[in-house]
Amino acid sequence: MTEVVDEALVPLPVGGKLELSSYVGSDLDFVRAARVSFDGDSTEYGATEDGILAFLLRNRHATPLEHGQLTFYVELPIFVVREWMRHRTWSFNELSGRYSELERKFFIPRTEDMRIQVGRPGHYKYEQMPEFEAKINSNVIEASCDAAFDQYESLLAAGVAKEVARAILPVGTFTKMWATVNPRNLLNFLVLRTAENAQKEIRAYAQRVEAEFAEVFPRTWTHWNESGRQML
Amino acid sequence: MTEVVDEALVPLPVGGKLELSSYVGSDLDFVRAARVSFDGDSTEYGATEDGILAFLLRNRHATPLEHGQLTFYVELPIFVVREWMRHRTWSFNELSGRYSELERKFFIPRTEDMRIQVGRPGHYKYEQMPEFEAKINSNVIEASCDAAFDQYESLLAAGVAKEVARAILPVGTFTKMWATVNPRNLLNFLVLRTAENAQKEIRAYAQRVEAEFAEVFPRTWTHWNESGRQML
Amino acid sequence: MTEVVDEALVPLPVGGKLELSSYVGSDLDFVRAARVSFDGDSTEYGATEDGILAFLLRNRHATPLEHGQLTFYVELPIFVVREWMRHRTWSFNELSGRYSELERKFFIPRTEDMRIQVGRPGHYKYEQMPEFEAKINSNVIEASCDAAFDQYESLLAAGVAKEVARAILPVGTFTKMWATVNPRNLLNFLVLRTAENAQKEIRAYAQRVEAEFAEVFPRTWTHWNESGRQML
Amino acid sequence: MTEVVDEALVPLPVGGKLELSSYVGSDLDFVRAARVSFDGDSTEYGATEDGILAFLLRNRHATPLEHGQLTFYVELPIFVVREWMRHRTWSFNELSGRYSELERKFFIPRTEDMRIQVGRPGHYKYEQMPEFEAKINSNVIEASCDAAFDQYESLLAAGVAKEVARAILPVGTFTKMWATVNPRNLLNFLVLRTAENAQKEIRAYAQRVEAEFAEVFPRTWTHWNESGRQML
Repeated sequence: MTEVVDEALVPLPVGGKLELSSYVGSDLDFVRAARVSFDGDSTEYGATEDGILAFLLRNRHATPLEHGQLTFYVELPIFVVREWMRHRTWSFNELSGRYSELERKFFIPRTEDMRIQVGRPGHYKYEQMPEFEAKINSNVIEASCDAAFDQYESLLAAGVAKEVARAILPVGTFTKMWATVNPRNLLNFLVLRTAENAQKEIRAYAQRVEAEFAEVFPRTWTHWNESGRQML
Repeated sequence: MTEVVDEALVPLPVGGKLELSSYVGSDLDFVRAARVSFDGDSTEYGATEDGILAFLLRNRHATPLEHGQLTFYVELPIFVVREWMRHRTWSFNELSGRYSELERKFFIPRTEDMRIQVGRPGHYKYEQMPEFEAKINSNVIEASCDAAFDQYESLLAAGVAKEVARAILPVGTFTKMWATVNPRNLLNFLVLRTAENAQKEIRAYAQRVEAEFAEVFPRTWTHWNESGRQML
Repeated sequence: MTEVVDEALVPLPVGGKLELSSYVGSDLDFVRAARVSFDGDSTEYGATEDGILAFLLRNRHATPLEHGQLTFYVELPIFVVREWMRHRTWSFNELSGRYSELERKFFIPRTEDMRIQVGRPGHYKYEQMPEFEAKINSNVIEASCDAAFDQYESLLAAGVAKEVARAILPVGTFTKMWATVNPRNLLNFLVLRTAENAQKEIRAYAQRVEAEFAEVFPRTWTHWNESGRQML
Repeated sequence: MTEVVDEALVPLPVGGKLELSSYVGSDLDFVRAARVSFDGDSTEYGATEDGILAFLLRNRHATPLEHGQLTFYVELPIFVVREWMRHRTWSFNELSGRYSELERKFFIPRTEDMRIQVGRPGHYKYEQMPEFEAKINSNVIEASCDAAFDQYESLLAAGVAKEVARAILPVGTFTKMWATVNPRNLLNFLVLRTAENAQKEIRAYAQRVEAEFAEVFPRTWTHWNESGRQML
């Protein structure tokens, strides 16, 4: 595991999960694809290759990073998947509330996730809510979600179609998905979703995406990180 | 209004809205773009142009349809926007539950929207629920949404950040968006979302998208419709 | 090698090359991604999985096919790469005539590639040119390309920048590229480029792409082929 | 015409052309789309709107710029269209050498376009060739293109199919296209193609694209330009 994973990592929401399911490509592959411009090639990754890769990342020559792909399996609240799917460069397959009965599983904030917002729109800052109040409000959230799920079950029991009944389920309900992206678009996702102003819950997932990426494309990650984590 | 709008149209959910905000391009423009392949051009839309357009749609020469664009303003439930945003060929800007307090406005099915589902996954059929039961279940939905919104307001009153509090709001909560697409991708959206097996609520919006499109690109719509409503 | 490779295959242009460099994903992976909709999964590929895959291809549920990727290394004439790059769903890195001196290597049609065109635009048919004439015209092509290359070399020798001098090289000059695509978009490429009305030279490459694909995703290819080779 | 058009503009290649054919959207539209996040709207463009637009461009909130579109008609050498079509965010229809006999019209560098290249790959600098030599080499280019075109005509006269005969035409041969893009992707195109290290010939076209854009979206262009011409 690289240095990207340290104690500063935001924990995933309780019940959340992210796994790298498969991937293809390597730091070397990106260099090989780039070198075709100059009618060159490489057979192993050495100092020359590392210099080329650094050059590519520094100068945002990003197309070679499209010759790779990563697939993740993720369990997450609906409001997080809503933000994730704004990135039209990913491929998704998600649990369907039309075809499946959803589970009684919700985003229930931990005490330290329960925050208040200060400042004006576009410039919000978030502060920790005092522990006692946080606990009370977290309980409100849990009770509200549970009550909605009870009604969902009663609608299903009464024969209401799943696709109609699910309309009352909270956006904090958990869902599951397969999500696939190439390294270039993965890094662009990280620029936006690991940023300070991204919502804490998607930031937690984005940090895990980054840790998995750094593990399998270590030099690409390092050069991107050291070149200022630029949009590519 | 063309013949696409008739009494067979599924009504929008109560409180729903779709307006064509702006567009560019014309049936003639698509013919002009196509004719550049043959070093030709047209200055007005006559029988020759109509024949070319019919040929394009029948043979799925779809790239000329990318030289146009339509922008819609839409008010709709979150579960509908979730399906809409799976189409990565659209551009969206949507009301944010992080920045704005959402409204007490939900998808409450009419009696005729309250349906039961029969058959097995992948092959569902939907049937109207008896009126008395439909009314009861619709009331359950309304009460459940209202209760969730009461809790949402109490969380906000307690100082909980909007982005956290919204986690308990139902996926039937209304949202608003600007949505933009080119005619080629609009027609591909219609193939999937006006189909019998699309959920009734998005089908209602897709039918209005189709009506607006048919109004401003009448010959393109006609030839596409008469050529079997193909994917392009 | 599957039945897609048989004697009906169009040969690559003389000097052409296509290799599958790497890939990720499998028939099973597509089924797994699809089953998440129903909260299901599979651990191995059996009759149930094959039935699901057939269902997906027949009904054009194509998003699961995006969880895979194939990378090809290709050597081909510029006029073929021009057609290939109209497919905006691929990722490319190509030899650059700005940075590299190009090789004296051109598309020189074999006798059987030398064809005449009959019929009217949009409905051309191609017929074999008589062998003696074909040979003469092929020689004209070769001589013309050689003469252009001689001038290219003289411009370079005079110090003209490569990016300017290459302007006189024929569109039949060979180039090299890395080309990457997911299985969904690969199949859509095949619909257009293995078709009868595609130019013979790109059809030759498309058939090799198909043979490589059929090798590594055999059931996906079979079901797609048997369902009428539809756009997805 | 805004200040972007000044004497520093690179002239188009002799015989080149770029026209804005149609467009939709406005500076105001982008602000309206952005304000939906906050449940707001604007009816006219004033100081508030200008402040919002500046904020968007400075912070790269780029999605609102997708609610517009511009269509250009362009006449240009094939080697320029090759670079242009690497931008997969544009829509194109181009003159086809399979369906049309091409014209005897080529990129013939002016004396001041005839340059030598110094430095090493990735870091080339270009310098003006002395006028006398430039003239000689320009004549070589013209003669070589003319000779190729003579052979092209003789192949066509012998009955060779247009799609085969065109293989000997130079990559400097002129072509024509319709090209459409949204403002977000147009600006990203400008970042790469108005840069110092872009080839002079595409830079000339990119500068005209920029001038047309600045004319119809003046405040968007101004804020983008003043915010450092960032990738969006």
